[in-house]
Amino acid sequence: MKTIYAFGEGKAEGDKSMKDLLGGKGAGLAEMCRLGLPVPPGFTITTEICNYYYAHQRQYPKELESQAAKSLSHIEKIMGEKFGDPEKPLLVSVRSGSRASMPGMMDTILNLGLNKKTLKGLTEQSKNIKFAQDSFERLKHMFQDVVGKPLPENPQEQLWEAIAAVFESWNSKRAIEYRRINRIPQDWGTACNVQAMVFGNMGDDSASGVAFTRDPSTGEKRFFGEYLRNAQGEDLVAGVRTPEPLEQLQKTLPHCYQELLTFYQKLERHYRDMQDMEFTIQKGKVWMLQTRRGQRTAKAAVKIAVDMVSEGLINKEEALLRIEPNQIDQLLHPMISPRTARKVLTKGLPASPGAAVGRVVFTAEEAVQWSEKKEAVILVRSETSAEDIHGMHVAQGILTSRGGMTSHAAVVARGMGKVCVVGCGAMEVDVEKKEFSVNGKVVKEGDWLTIDGTTGDVMLGKLPTMEPELSKEYQTLMSWADAVRKLKIRANADTPEDARRSLNFGAEGIGLCRTEHMFFDEDRIQAMRQMIVAESTEERKKALAKLKPMQKNDFLGIFRVMKGLPVTIRLLDPPLHEFLPQTQKEIQTLSKEIDVPVERLKKAVDDLKEMNPMLGHRGCRLGVTYPEIYEMQIEAIMEAVCELKRNEKIEVFPEIELPLISLKGEIQLLRKLCEDVCEKVMKETGERIAYRIGTMVETPRAAFRSDAIAPHADFFSFGTNDLTQTTLGISRDDGFKFLPEYEQKGLVRCDPFQTIDFEGVGELMKVCVEKARKVKPKMEIGICGEHGGDPESIVFCHQIGLNYVSCSPFRVPIARLAAARAVLLERL
Amino acid sequence: MKTIYAFGEGKAEGDKSMKDLLGGKGAGLAEMCRLGLPVPPGFTITTEICNYYYAHQRQYPKELESQAAKSLSHIEKIMGEKFGDPEKPLLVSVRSGSRASMPGMMDTILNLGLNKKTLKGLTEQSKNIKFAQDSFERLKHMFQDVVGKPLPENPQEQLWEAIAAVFESWNSKRAIEYRRINRIPQDWGTACNVQAMVFGNMGDDSASGVAFTRDPSTGEKRFFGEYLRNAQGEDLVAGVRTPEPLEQLQKTLPHCYQELLTFYQKLERHYRDMQDMEFTIQKGKVWMLQTRRGQRTAKAAVKIAVDMVSEGLINKEEALLRIEPNQIDQLLHPMISPRTARKVLTKGLPASPGAAVGRVVFTAEEAVQWSEKKEAVILVRSETSAEDIHGMHVAQGILTSRGGMTSHAAVVARGMGKVCVVGCGAMEVDVEKKEFSVNGKVVKEGDWLTIDGTTGDVMLGKLPTMEPELSKEYQTLMSWADAVRKLKIRANADTPEDARRSLNFGAEGIGLCRTEHMFFDEDRIQAMRQMIVAESTEERKKALAKLKPMQKNDFLGIFRVMKGLPVTIRLLDPPLHEFLPQTQKEIQTLSKEIDVPVERLKKAVDDLKEMNPMLGHRGCRLGVTYPEIYEMQIEAIMEAVCELKRNEKIEVFPEIELPLISLKGEIQLLRKLCEDVCEKVMKETGERIAYRIGTMVETPRAAFRSDAIAPHADFFSFGTNDLTQTTLGISRDDGFKFLPEYEQKGLVRCDPFQTIDFEGVGELMKVCVEKARKVKPKMEIGICGEHGGDPESIVFCHQIGLNYVSCSPFRVPIARLAAARAVLLERL
Repeated sequence: MKTIYAFGEGKAEGDKSMKDLLGGKGAGLAEMCRLGLPVPPGFTITTEICNYYYAHQRQYPKELESQAAKSLSHIEKIMGEKFGDPEKPLLVSVRSGSRASMPGMMDTILNLGLNKKTLKGLTEQSKNIKFAQDSFERLKHMFQDVVGKPLPENPQEQLWEAIAAVFESWNSKRAIEYRRINRIPQDWGTACNVQAMVFGNMGDDSASGVAFTRDPSTGEKRFFGEYLRNAQGEDLVAGVRTPEPLEQLQKTLPHCYQELLTFYQKLERHYRDMQDMEFTIQKGKVWMLQTRRGQRTAKAAVKIAVDMVSEGLINKEEALLRIEPNQIDQLLHPMISPRTARKVLTKGLPASPGAAVGRVVFTAEEAVQWSEKKEAVILVRSETSAEDIHGMHVAQGILTSRGGMTSHAAVVARGMGKVCVVGCGAMEVDVEKKEFSVNGKVVKEGDWLTIDGTTGDVMLGKLPTMEPELSKEYQTLMSWADAVRKLKIRANADTPEDARRSLNFGAEGIGLCRTEHMFFDEDRIQAMRQMIVAESTEERKKALAKLKPMQKNDFLGIFRVMKGLPVTIRLLDPPLHEFLPQTQKEIQTLSKEIDVPVERLKKAVDDLKEMNPMLGHRGCRLGVTYPEIYEMQIEAIMEAVCELKRNEKIEVFPEIELPLISLKGEIQLLRKLCEDVCEKVMKETGERIAYRIGTMVETPRAAFRSDAIAPHADFFSFGTNDLTQTTLGISRDDGFKFLPEYEQKGLVRCDPFQTIDFEGVGELMKVCVEKARKVKPKMEIGICGEHGGDPESIVFCHQIGLNYVSCSPFRVPIARLAAARAVLLERL
Repeated sequence: MKTIYAFGEGKAEGDKSMKDLLGGKGAGLAEMCRLGLPVPPGFTITTEICNYYYAHQRQYPKELESQAAKSLSHIEKIMGEKFGDPEKPLLVSVRSGSRASMPGMMDTILNLGLNKKTLKGLTEQSKNIKFAQDSFERLKHMFQDVVGKPLPENPQEQLWEAIAAVFESWNSKRAIEYRRINRIPQDWGTACNVQAMVFGNMGDDSASGVAFTRDPSTGEKRFFGEYLRNAQGEDLVAGVRTPEPLEQLQKTLPHCYQELLTFYQKLERHYRDMQDMEFTIQKGKVWMLQTRRGQRTAKAAVKIAVDMVSEGLINKEEALLRIEPNQIDQLLHPMISPRTARKVLTKGLPASPGAAVGRVVFTAEEAVQWSEKKEAVILVRSETSAEDIHGMHVAQGILTSRGGMTSHAAVVARGMGKVCVVGCGAMEVDVEKKEFSVNGKVVKEGDWLTIDGTTGDVMLGKLPTMEPELSKEYQTLMSWADAVRKLKIRANADTPEDARRSLNFGAEGIGLCRTEHMFFDEDRIQAMRQMIVAESTEERKKALAKLKPMQKNDFLGIFRVMKGLPVTIRLLDPPLHEFLPQTQKEIQTLSKEIDVPVERLKKAVDDLKEMNPMLGHRGCRLGVTYPEIYEMQIEAIMEAVCELKRNEKIEVFPEIELPLISLKGEIQLLRKLCEDVCEKVMKETGERIAYRIGTMVETPRAAFRSDAIAPHADFFSFGTNDLTQTTLGISRDDGFKFLPEYEQKGLVRCDPFQTIDFEGVGELMKVCVEKARKVKPKMEIGICGEHGGDPESIVFCHQIGLNYVSCSPFRVPIARLAAARAVLLERL
């Protein structure tokens, strides 16, 4: 078994393709050797040995020791020094390095090989007692810190303790947690690099530095970096002294600077990507210690990718694959000016990105009142519900003390593109007193607050923000993505503003227009409530007649924006109790407002209560039991379409969508109802409209028996939020109580409400598509759940042959890129 | 197209095998003709014509008219009369008759062909003016009633209007409703029988009667029936005069009686089943008008089937197929003495059969208090929850004002074998005042009440009841069933009493022992609550240590009863909030009792609240997040098993069941936990136990990916209650709000919580079995949901290859019979 890969003097056993085995650092060192760059000689113990170590009660394969000894003497030969030799002692570093970068998560020990005896040799060799003693102190301190015991005298013992410590650090708590968050598999293991020391702290002709081949924050093509004179690399990281910009080196050590210039150009050309390098200058000689793909901001990533295409370094497809679709999100939202000092009051989960500044309010009603006075507001709640929608609409941002990344507040805010921070556990919200407190600090209604939905930060006062600008490189990149992708991208939009924003972001239609949000507006919620508590079909129809013109107006607005494009309108979906007030006081107020006795209202509220609203009287079940509601909605849709066609020559392609269909009988019955109403309206108006009728697929029953439903549907749209809830039997509202522990224990790879559970829900979707297309080969199938905006899920949707994904407006660009990536991944 | 089948004079175009086409009545008439019995000639218009009629805007195929004319003249020839002839007028009846008996649901018209002219002819022919005029009056009245307009003069017009009315009556509201309840397909259609009239009202040598070949209520082998002298059959049905027992006929018209004896023996021998016949005696001549399978009580059904085997009329397999498994239920429960007059206060849904008499109480606590004073009680609630379990345990019966057939009260009561009536909408329960009222009538705590869970009747006072006796014929029949069936039958039992009852009813093991009900007992609920509000694992373990000896005792009791048999024990399943009090007052009481501050209790209650408890933090999710709970339970199980083996030489086969498993990771993690605890206990006690670890299959994810779970499970048990909820996305607690309308509109064939939704849930179960057995061919798979006691579902379980069904104790005999039937149906 080959346990070790050596490198040094322009030769290396490994190369850049061997990241899995040698880790990023090991592969980079080997590759730089092969390129003829000056790299201190060393060897890499493979990741396999790390895994072996854990699988065998912390034992190594026996061949490791002899192979290490051989490699060590190879280093000694190159360096003309000997490990543990009292006269000319070789010193080595031991560093971790895994397949994926895990900055600062694992351990390093420098200057191994020093003890009382070899210290003398080093002093004599370097003729620098201060340097030699400093090096010894550093070793003792680092060793104690990392290994957890005092430095032994024996250099071999030092070396093997250090190697074990590196392997141990793979399974430190913070490393495990980091991998969990970054979805890095726990079984990759780390490599361990043993390398001859070079010293940047041997005087003013020595230095340590880091450099980027391009500017990592703007993407500008310039050699960029920092260095510290007379210092080791660790000093740079620790920030004890302020480093100098790399340009300075041109003056102090011009030949070194020139050498670095050559190296960086060589590395970037070779790797064809922006590199992040570490170097040490020892007495005027440049040594390269690391090269790796450079981290960069979204803005830089886009610019670098597009620039490199112009430079002929990479092709368009590579450029597209260079951008992590989720990164794009950074570019789309306003943000707090980068140079602003933040005094963070508390921190929550970054539920919907961007920065928002406004005055604190505690109820949706207050939000509306303040905003009518042209005041910007932040709506603060312990958690939100459907009743808060109109308040969320007018607020700049939403802040909650409870709930997770998929709570109501988070989902709705993302849908609206509103800034949102949720689950600030340290906040205590007191709606009665109109205040919240964090560790005794009290914030009252009207106080200014700034929240950062990208980081989760909550700050007192008004912080300066800046609007995003979309660069021409961004536009270029997106046009390449559009040329490649096969999936159509639609948006989930409920208002003309959302529709307009979606178009600006490149949406090709609306994949989900929810009609229920429209009913929460103050001017219509009362009519809605009258409709709900109606005691006869006649009474209900009367209330519906009040709502119809308003609904029609909503549709007119959206249709005008979306002219020439398809718009999928979902008929009423939530259970009716969501529209009713719950407290005694609210019921009394409502009683007066709509002139219905309190007792009758209370009875309606009680009768509509449900144990499990998610599995309750909602979706198409409302259409079956109260057909007059759907009739009104379909009339409003068709009347709007016909009117636009006749009066404004605007054509739209309405797609009427039935929610929560599970049974053949449901779609048969409701399709008939839709057709009858559409025919009636078309007859009345004299227009002919190419409308379509389809269903959401939200229950396992619907997915699994799509062959029974498909013959009666013109299209399907996966509602993967609900499909995930029903397939896994996990409520999105309650799952946050145990899902984090599930992730921690590795029972789920990630939150199934963020990325599709491919093995479960995903398999079911696949079967659904197959069965539906068996009976209707050209069946159009899309997705409109939260997952429609998740890049990994979008790739999956492409793979199982969906026609489109629909996501919240702000995620449309991300989806365009992810859809292109899906095609490119197929070609790899 | 052949639209008509004629019969008469010992010949017939149809026969008894043609029920689908000719309806039951038509096929019976044809068959009796073929047997040479005296049947008035006539013809049957097929059910196909009924369907044609509805499919073609109420038009007939054109060939019908000529075929009818031809058949009518055939009747005329036989009778020597002519339809519409003023001198010798032929009179005919027009009767409905569908494939399944729908007594009284559809229409009949007699004496067609009479008008002013033909009345004279009839008068002369019969020489009986009173008879003739009475016949005319009857016709006019019936025609007006059924057709809805006055009788036309033209006999042809009379005939065709009557035929149309019969077809129309197939789709009357009451007929549709009857078919829905009795699960008769709406598209079968009815046949229409046109037949020469014979008259039982032509004097004292005439009569009409009905007869059974055996006693339909006891099954005794005796000719049994009633007749009315000088009357038409309709008079018998209308009950205007009291009929005489058939024996009387022996005296008044002995030769007729003798003839009937011959006929009945011939028919029973021919049909090899108990027959229900209608006859008319016209001037001393017997005419047979109908023969069909006789309805019978369960008791009679069993006796007749077993007797007929002894008589050599049928074989054992036929005998088994003669009993509708659900009928058996009638035999197992106490009932109100049949001769008691009932004064019904109100009526609810018959949720769990039998009769219960007791004093009214309104809370579980009161139920316990009264029953400690040896008082029989009826627990009255608006609806029940898990907290009422201990009250339900001690009550004779349970009565609720809300909820459906699958509400908590209904399901739990059936499981316990308690009498239960639910959903008495007319009842208003006032727990505070300790009373309920029905239309102003007030019933107070302590008042006597009798409820009939077989009919849904609620009656004031103490009605006399009788215990059931299981006849020797029942025992014989069940032994035949056991010899035939392949499915094993287990019971769902949580207590030693339930276990004992299950054994008596023939269970071969316990398929589901729920451990949570045990925690509601008064002596342990407080320890349970301490466990739940514990703030550290240590605190929780302390509370669990209190619970363990009690749990162990529970298991000891059950295991002793079940010696030598397998017992499946499900670990804790419900969400923890079910164990906590909800009202402010209860919380305050609890605070004192367990010495935990009110605020902390309130927080615990709040924190545990769930939007959708069904999809919440429950089942194995509790085991993942609080492993110490499952550890305690497994210890209790294994310690009990080991102790019994050593001290009492009793061997049981414990099967530890993990609820709500959906993911491979869950079963891997928890299987390891189970094994570790089991090993520990076995090591401590020095016993080796053959235990098994398995899972419930309750989510679509688990069913659909059984191949991922099966390698880690020793057995599967379908929890079809939850699987139905998740697959269809319908909460059992909320579905009653729309499911009845779904049944009415034909969107579901029946309540999916009563009989498995074969096309959806059933298909998923099938895939689950296939995928599991692919990776583990001998995988043992059972079912333990409510469906495990439903005969139709049991047949399905047999078909998809399950190994056992488990049901509530009282349904064990039903399941044994249904399992046998499943095998026999396969052989047909």
